[in-house]
Amino acid sequence: MTEPNGAAAIGVAVLGLGNVGSEVVRILREHAQELESRVGAPLVLRGIAVRSTEGDRGVPAELLTTDADSLVARDDVDIVVEVIGGIEVPRKQILSALNAGKSVVTANKALLADYTGELAEAAEKAGADLYFEAAVAGAIPVIRPLTQSLAGDRVTKVAGIVNGTTNFILSAMDETGADYADTLAEAGRLGYAEADPTADVEGFDAAAKAAILASIAFHTRVTAADVYREGISKITSADLDAAKALGCTIKLLSMCERVTNGDGEERISARVYPALVPRDHPLATVNGAFNAVVVEAENAGRLMFYGQGAGGAPTASAVMGDLVMAARNKVHGGRGPRESKYADLKIAPIGEIPTRYYVNMQVADRAGVLSAVAAEFAKHDVSISTVRQEGSGDGAGLIVVTHWASDADLSETVAALAKLEFVTAITSVLRLEGSSE
Amino acid sequence: MTEPNGAAAIGVAVLGLGNVGSEVVRILREHAQELESRVGAPLVLRGIAVRSTEGDRGVPAELLTTDADSLVARDDVDIVVEVIGGIEVPRKQILSALNAGKSVVTANKALLADYTGELAEAAEKAGADLYFEAAVAGAIPVIRPLTQSLAGDRVTKVAGIVNGTTNFILSAMDETGADYADTLAEAGRLGYAEADPTADVEGFDAAAKAAILASIAFHTRVTAADVYREGISKITSADLDAAKALGCTIKLLSMCERVTNGDGEERISARVYPALVPRDHPLATVNGAFNAVVVEAENAGRLMFYGQGAGGAPTASAVMGDLVMAARNKVHGGRGPRESKYADLKIAPIGEIPTRYYVNMQVADRAGVLSAVAAEFAKHDVSISTVRQEGSGDGAGLIVVTHWASDADLSETVAALAKLEFVTAITSVLRLEGSSE
Repeated sequence: MTEPNGAAAIGVAVLGLGNVGSEVVRILREHAQELESRVGAPLVLRGIAVRSTEGDRGVPAELLTTDADSLVARDDVDIVVEVIGGIEVPRKQILSALNAGKSVVTANKALLADYTGELAEAAEKAGADLYFEAAVAGAIPVIRPLTQSLAGDRVTKVAGIVNGTTNFILSAMDETGADYADTLAEAGRLGYAEADPTADVEGFDAAAKAAILASIAFHTRVTAADVYREGISKITSADLDAAKALGCTIKLLSMCERVTNGDGEERISARVYPALVPRDHPLATVNGAFNAVVVEAENAGRLMFYGQGAGGAPTASAVMGDLVMAARNKVHGGRGPRESKYADLKIAPIGEIPTRYYVNMQVADRAGVLSAVAAEFAKHDVSISTVRQEGSGDGAGLIVVTHWASDADLSETVAALAKLEFVTAITSVLRLEGSSE
Repeated sequence: MTEPNGAAAIGVAVLGLGNVGSEVVRILREHAQELESRVGAPLVLRGIAVRSTEGDRGVPAELLTTDADSLVARDDVDIVVEVIGGIEVPRKQILSALNAGKSVVTANKALLADYTGELAEAAEKAGADLYFEAAVAGAIPVIRPLTQSLAGDRVTKVAGIVNGTTNFILSAMDETGADYADTLAEAGRLGYAEADPTADVEGFDAAAKAAILASIAFHTRVTAADVYREGISKITSADLDAAKALGCTIKLLSMCERVTNGDGEERISARVYPALVPRDHPLATVNGAFNAVVVEAENAGRLMFYGQGAGGAPTASAVMGDLVMAARNKVHGGRGPRESKYADLKIAPIGEIPTRYYVNMQVADRAGVLSAVAAEFAKHDVSISTVRQEGSGDGAGLIVVTHWASDADLSETVAALAKLEFVTAITSVLRLEGSSE
């Protein structure tokens, strides 16, 4: 095969030709000259692994193959781009690429959330690069700022809106007042929710991203199983109304935080849940399918990164940035940042994490109810910030917002409240994040 | 000298012990263990170059030296951190460091805006790193996202608020209604403006940063002299009132843009000026000494980066990130991104750049004035979007907002308006950026 003059070509294999893969292939083909100037050698697409080569896929048929393993193993493939999704299949393909000294660029958050350690060790052993900027927040640079720009600082907190589907649904519910089921259906019609939306609406996707963010922010291996997780499927239009009345909106947050226990031991909290966020907080204004990540560090202070967190072209932008960096390393020598796990911090159980809470309950409308409810909070050391009473009669609503309390204390309070004879129902319990108090 | 066990120490020289330098030294000393874990070898501070070693500088006296040249030349110095400021002195020091194969981390935007080419060539020749994340927007990662994360994308526009002093002044004028002189004096009292504020208020600092941003975004050498520049010293409280009435605020913007001329030739525009920005634009909400940079790229879409753009600790955070990266390269081999200037695009003259304009003039209050003014705009092909008339009598004000027009056409219009007998004064001409129209 003849190559353009100059440096030897860098061969690229792309695994997957979906939304992201087809954009990666388009950019590689449309901007070959510009990419060559940036890398210092031509990037040559050797092949694309697909499930089926039937039909017109918009790329030269000779590039397509259903035999991903052979494509990855080709001598003239130097970098493998994995945008297939799934876990076991890409895991094996990435491992064989890394073991053969090939660099890997992947957007696969579910895989990384469970297997970053294994993949990073294979990369380390072979002296290859493992890049995954596209795995969190699409086009928004987050991985690189955390691993490189903040490499000399101490990150204390990462709070992000990193799932476009749930943010689209919550934004729409906030705007239209519609209920969850209708809004989810609408999101599906508009292409913002998958046929089976479980991974998004139950917070699995956001939890995988939280695991990745916590790992790199705190130099510790964190997997999806370490992340406390609640989804948005129980959020009602009544919750959004109540949030509004409190000057808040509701967002699904991925939170990663350094926490210190009573013994002064530093630990990590990683958690995903829908939370009330004050409308004047930067994350409250992130609407629709947009993503944003707020990072707090000891010296940098608070930083915010905002942009398109999903979609073919934005995600491909992040993949291409990684691909150019991996290719430059092949041409000029050197490697990207390695896994950093020296801190090896423990995960703090959710029960110990203090936050503020919003508790919405139905109570009988009679004298003494408020005082009995307040007494129950006090008994469990949970201090009340505001109480709002709505309606009257049997359907009276009581909305309590607490000061900071531990999750365990709050859970006991709620269990005790539920047993009170005049409490008809605990309608919802949500956390309140980002308040200045 | 004995070093901790393990990899050989990386020796660091810090030039300057001002706001930023003293924070860098503090972090190096307080977090030595953590930094060693991240680098893979200890970072050892060999010395600090200062103008005078008199008095207690808060660091061990034996680290201080007034002989920067000898410090830079020491065999046990591997990386030089330049946070002195100025141009000729640090230029020589950085060049001798690079020529000796030492890596350099600098926060010196004024130097980089004029000499990045020379410094990058020295780095390239010696195989050393030249990092400068701290030179633009303090703690906010901007250089790394542009040079690495977006390395596979095509940036079309960078628009930033990158000068804290002017943003503090304009935010305060917007909030309090005070005039420019009083607000500048207040900024000085609060430490947000220097004794001689020229570099900030006349836009020189923002222009240096625009040159750096345009260079890396468009793979072309751009120097401060290529940047069109207007400062904020002529902005009046009347301008801010008028902006408010139009639903806008006023911000000093650093704009870098790809523009295409009539022949389809791609060129660069780099410019700094105060502009009206609609209040619902993300940059309008960036207040006080905060910085923000909006980047638009073909595939990534619009990204925004927000945080503290100045101050000792935030700027030191960016310096430390670069220092850890440069040290990792020393330990593990490899180099950071090199200068990329292959595109070599021409600079488009300001006259050809289309924007929208706000023109505030005093006119005699008599019949036919509005039609005569409108005719003058039409004669020069400048289409009017809105006109507002204020007051009456000799002091009547006329505020015109135009549709998109070239700077040259607008300048001719304004010159012609000034000659009209019933136009008493052209009070101000400002651009309007970030409108969706």
